[in-house]
Amino acid sequence: MPAIYKAPVKDTRYVLEHVVGLERYRNLPGFAEVTPDLVAAILEEGAKFVEGVIHPLNQTGDKEGCLRHADGSVTTPKGFADAYRAMCAGGWNALMSPPEYGGQGLPHVIGSAFEEYVTAANMAFAMYTGLTQGAISALLVAGSEEQKRTWVPPMVAGRFTGTMNLTEPQCGTDLGLIRTRAEPAGDGSWRITGTKIFISAGEHDLAENIVHLVLAKTPGAPDSVKGLSLFLVPKRLLNPDGTLGERNRVSCGSIEHKMGIHGNATCVMTYDGAKGWLVGEEMKGLKAMFVMMNVARLGVGLQGLGQAEIARQNAVAYARDRLQGRALTGPKNPQEKADPILVHPDVRRMLMDARAFTEGARALCLWAALQADLAEKAESADEREAAHDLLSLLTPVIKAHLTEEGYQTATTAQQVFGGHGYIAEWGMEQFVRDARIAMIYEGTNGVQAMDLVGRKLPANGGRALRAFLARVDEGIAEARADAALVGLAGDLATAKADLEGATLWLMERAFQNPDHAGAGASAYLRLLALVAFGDLWLRMARASRTALAEGTPDRAFHEAKVLTARHFFERKLPDAASLARQVKAGADTLMAMPAEAF
Amino acid sequence: MPAIYKAPVKDTRYVLEHVVGLERYRNLPGFAEVTPDLVAAILEEGAKFVEGVIHPLNQTGDKEGCLRHADGSVTTPKGFADAYRAMCAGGWNALMSPPEYGGQGLPHVIGSAFEEYVTAANMAFAMYTGLTQGAISALLVAGSEEQKRTWVPPMVAGRFTGTMNLTEPQCGTDLGLIRTRAEPAGDGSWRITGTKIFISAGEHDLAENIVHLVLAKTPGAPDSVKGLSLFLVPKRLLNPDGTLGERNRVSCGSIEHKMGIHGNATCVMTYDGAKGWLVGEEMKGLKAMFVMMNVARLGVGLQGLGQAEIARQNAVAYARDRLQGRALTGPKNPQEKADPILVHPDVRRMLMDARAFTEGARALCLWAALQADLAEKAESADEREAAHDLLSLLTPVIKAHLTEEGYQTATTAQQVFGGHGYIAEWGMEQFVRDARIAMIYEGTNGVQAMDLVGRKLPANGGRALRAFLARVDEGIAEARADAALVGLAGDLATAKADLEGATLWLMERAFQNPDHAGAGASAYLRLLALVAFGDLWLRMARASRTALAEGTPDRAFHEAKVLTARHFFERKLPDAASLARQVKAGADTLMAMPAEAF
Repeated sequence: MPAIYKAPVKDTRYVLEHVVGLERYRNLPGFAEVTPDLVAAILEEGAKFVEGVIHPLNQTGDKEGCLRHADGSVTTPKGFADAYRAMCAGGWNALMSPPEYGGQGLPHVIGSAFEEYVTAANMAFAMYTGLTQGAISALLVAGSEEQKRTWVPPMVAGRFTGTMNLTEPQCGTDLGLIRTRAEPAGDGSWRITGTKIFISAGEHDLAENIVHLVLAKTPGAPDSVKGLSLFLVPKRLLNPDGTLGERNRVSCGSIEHKMGIHGNATCVMTYDGAKGWLVGEEMKGLKAMFVMMNVARLGVGLQGLGQAEIARQNAVAYARDRLQGRALTGPKNPQEKADPILVHPDVRRMLMDARAFTEGARALCLWAALQADLAEKAESADEREAAHDLLSLLTPVIKAHLTEEGYQTATTAQQVFGGHGYIAEWGMEQFVRDARIAMIYEGTNGVQAMDLVGRKLPANGGRALRAFLARVDEGIAEARADAALVGLAGDLATAKADLEGATLWLMERAFQNPDHAGAGASAYLRLLALVAFGDLWLRMARASRTALAEGTPDRAFHEAKVLTARHFFERKLPDAASLARQVKAGADTLMAMPAEAF
Repeated sequence: MPAIYKAPVKDTRYVLEHVVGLERYRNLPGFAEVTPDLVAAILEEGAKFVEGVIHPLNQTGDKEGCLRHADGSVTTPKGFADAYRAMCAGGWNALMSPPEYGGQGLPHVIGSAFEEYVTAANMAFAMYTGLTQGAISALLVAGSEEQKRTWVPPMVAGRFTGTMNLTEPQCGTDLGLIRTRAEPAGDGSWRITGTKIFISAGEHDLAENIVHLVLAKTPGAPDSVKGLSLFLVPKRLLNPDGTLGERNRVSCGSIEHKMGIHGNATCVMTYDGAKGWLVGEEMKGLKAMFVMMNVARLGVGLQGLGQAEIARQNAVAYARDRLQGRALTGPKNPQEKADPILVHPDVRRMLMDARAFTEGARALCLWAALQADLAEKAESADEREAAHDLLSLLTPVIKAHLTEEGYQTATTAQQVFGGHGYIAEWGMEQFVRDARIAMIYEGTNGVQAMDLVGRKLPANGGRALRAFLARVDEGIAEARADAALVGLAGDLATAKADLEGATLWLMERAFQNPDHAGAGASAYLRLLALVAFGDLWLRMARASRTALAEGTPDRAFHEAKVLTARHFFERKLPDAASLARQVKAGADTLMAMPAEAF
């Protein structure tokens, strides 16, 4: 009864065709080559690799966990090192990396599609390559030419992996509290001293070397986030010829025992005068780190989607297989003693909830990935700016909402199994435990909500939200051309009005009292996410109804899409009105409570 | 950094005084003795015992788990056996048991109040005594005089524990699929053969003997729930003088590795011609088992509350202690580098959500426990019937809603800890893992929802719901006498109208198509729970405003109550409208999806 996983290639291709509209972007650098046939080949091959090599290590990796030895070295679960080497040998770790550094140079949309598969199949494993991607991005943006030339190629090749080192015992969200210090060594390098905690993949046995990107304070720097600089601190130094040299003074002091992602080593890292190099300018470290963090936040959103998807697939299989009780309308399986539990409306509700989330989330992630591509590659500055706006607005939404709902969906899928869902053997409880961290790291979901209402909304006079709402209007207008979608379009218009009302309320009140923004932030983020999902589901309903009208041979697939869209509008979107009310409840009651009364 | 726990005695006493109105029931047998002073003494002593003896074993028990030996015996975690003996020596395991069998004979309201503390402090431990309570109840209702005389006293004394054996590998909710067989032995006893799974406390080292209550089929019995009989099957047989005799042919074949409640042994039990005795009439086994199950369902609701409460307490402590960031309105703690995270509105929102749940749930549980007392002891048959109606209606609501929200609240409390919430050392992730099972066992929450809409609502022409709604109206009318509560009363009236509308819709449509009932059941249950919480919060707001007006010396406590009530009305009750819409969405979309398209 080990858990199953099948990469949802067909649905990915549907999203690329009907939501992303990949064909429309043949003009962009790197897109022309990505023909539908090539996309199909990449996704099919990637699916095979993930299903055959990565997924079989998920439950065993959870059970075995990582082991730290007395010398500070860490052994990953059996099979991880081989699978990692196979992944790098196939170039699957570097789909999005630039060709000039040895990567495949594929668009974000393709890289993100594949990333969902890897993280769904084995979240703990996927983190080793995922974090490396983030570190590469930061180096490409902020590193010197020499740093890029030296460190990026072995990271792209998978010989080195990357980490991000922010958190310290006294310092999580509030990075101004960082105590790690960097002293100039006089030779252009620095000596880094301090303790970092919760460092994912901080030490392991997958690669020859680990490139730590570390936030630290330089002498005389202000004691706030404005005083932070970013340093590159390798586990092993390099000889002048690029070969591995001596061990740097950085080591793993311990690994954490945690709720899930047991296959990924979460390390306490000790920097004891370790040799490092400044990345970018002194005291501009946070900006460089945010490049990495934004990549990571989208990746974390994919983790929420991924765990929901694998949990959903297993719940569907179980619901088809498990015979228990009879349909309320009479036996559907009279030759057996009971019907499959899939006949029960409440089981269907759970599975449709899961589906409405995973398919909507996939559309949102790939559409956001397109914005990442457009922000880099679109022809005009206006287009690049517009894409950047949308990506910035959606990043906290994707991180927070997809991890929140991903966890809930994994929980719901576990529920379909009844008691068996609670037993380790079936694997369902692992999906819940693994998914749980995604709501926390890379900025808790509450921090994401504050990022949305405090920074992303007001930026440039609200330009990003206006563009988003215009897109929603456009989708509503288009859908109204189809009589069968007029009701859904009206529901979305109502939810959009709720969002606009809540936005106005927040913007007006937050000037008077910023606590109103804080009090409403989480509900606002969920409300915006619901409208974004509603927009995508309405577009998918329209695309599938068009395909059906045009006589698609794949009727069942498109009919299921339309039904799932209806389910979303019937059961999920109605929360919009309640969320708007929660936003407008404001901060008064919350702040009136004295601290000692809690 | 081990987790803390302090039994919420003050809040329990508040509920007993202002919600339950214990003083009004001095006329009932066993209530006259329960003076406010005695209640205070019991709760304070109980709290001390739980905090000092039971709670310290929670994290160690989780880490160590239970161990099955090759001979089938099971060792519980270190300290459990001593704590169990201390609990029984103090009579804490038998607060509600009848004095004629050695129990304390206290009302359900007092027993339930204490049960919350035990299960909050250590859920895995509490299950050993909790299941025994259920088995005692079943024997008292359905057992013969001889069975009661023989088995109940040692169970009340704690020398024997009890279990319930329903589930089999092929059979969970659908008990008609049970394959375990009972053959008459000719001497009045029976031989039981079969395999039961997921048997909590099926084997352990806490007590001398274990009394298994086992559902099985007798020869010629119909192959459905109507063919089920209940058997008492002891681990060890008794000699004629009542001393322990030989080992019965029942054994623990293995124990499950599961997500949580590691301190409780979840056993596969093998019955290999074990000697047993019929409890009650042949083929009336399900009725007797339901006595046990209803007790257990209320207990499971308390588990949801308990895990939420302990998680909440730890989150509050952490939020006061953890310095991170500054208040949005300027530093509150200028002498330090950062403010406690309790200054942040979103952290307050999480903690107030938790509080609105735990205090509301406590009120609901104790008010339901009062109905259990009244159903047994009220003077008139009408009063007993009315109490029984309410208890029946609320049992699935308590089981499902309190476990759902208990899990969510534990998750929210874990979120307050950021990354530390994910690390085992802090204990927060254990609360989530432990709480998760409560949504599943004793009938999944989906099964509870079907019990509510399929059985409890239509019973006696809807009498129970009408009585419940009349009570809600009464509370609304009373609250309207206080100008400060008119707004809340109006909100509750709106939510009640949503509930009535959803009820009408369901009752009309379910006749045409029972799938509509199934499709709306879970949303309906949540809607009813919200109205029940709203009723209790409105009453508590009124009671506390009265206390404040009367010049209570404990102003801070009552002001916090009123604020928490407001929070519930601002942030939780608004979901009622959305839930009513979800009920009215009906089954069409759900059932239109072909099985193979999921």
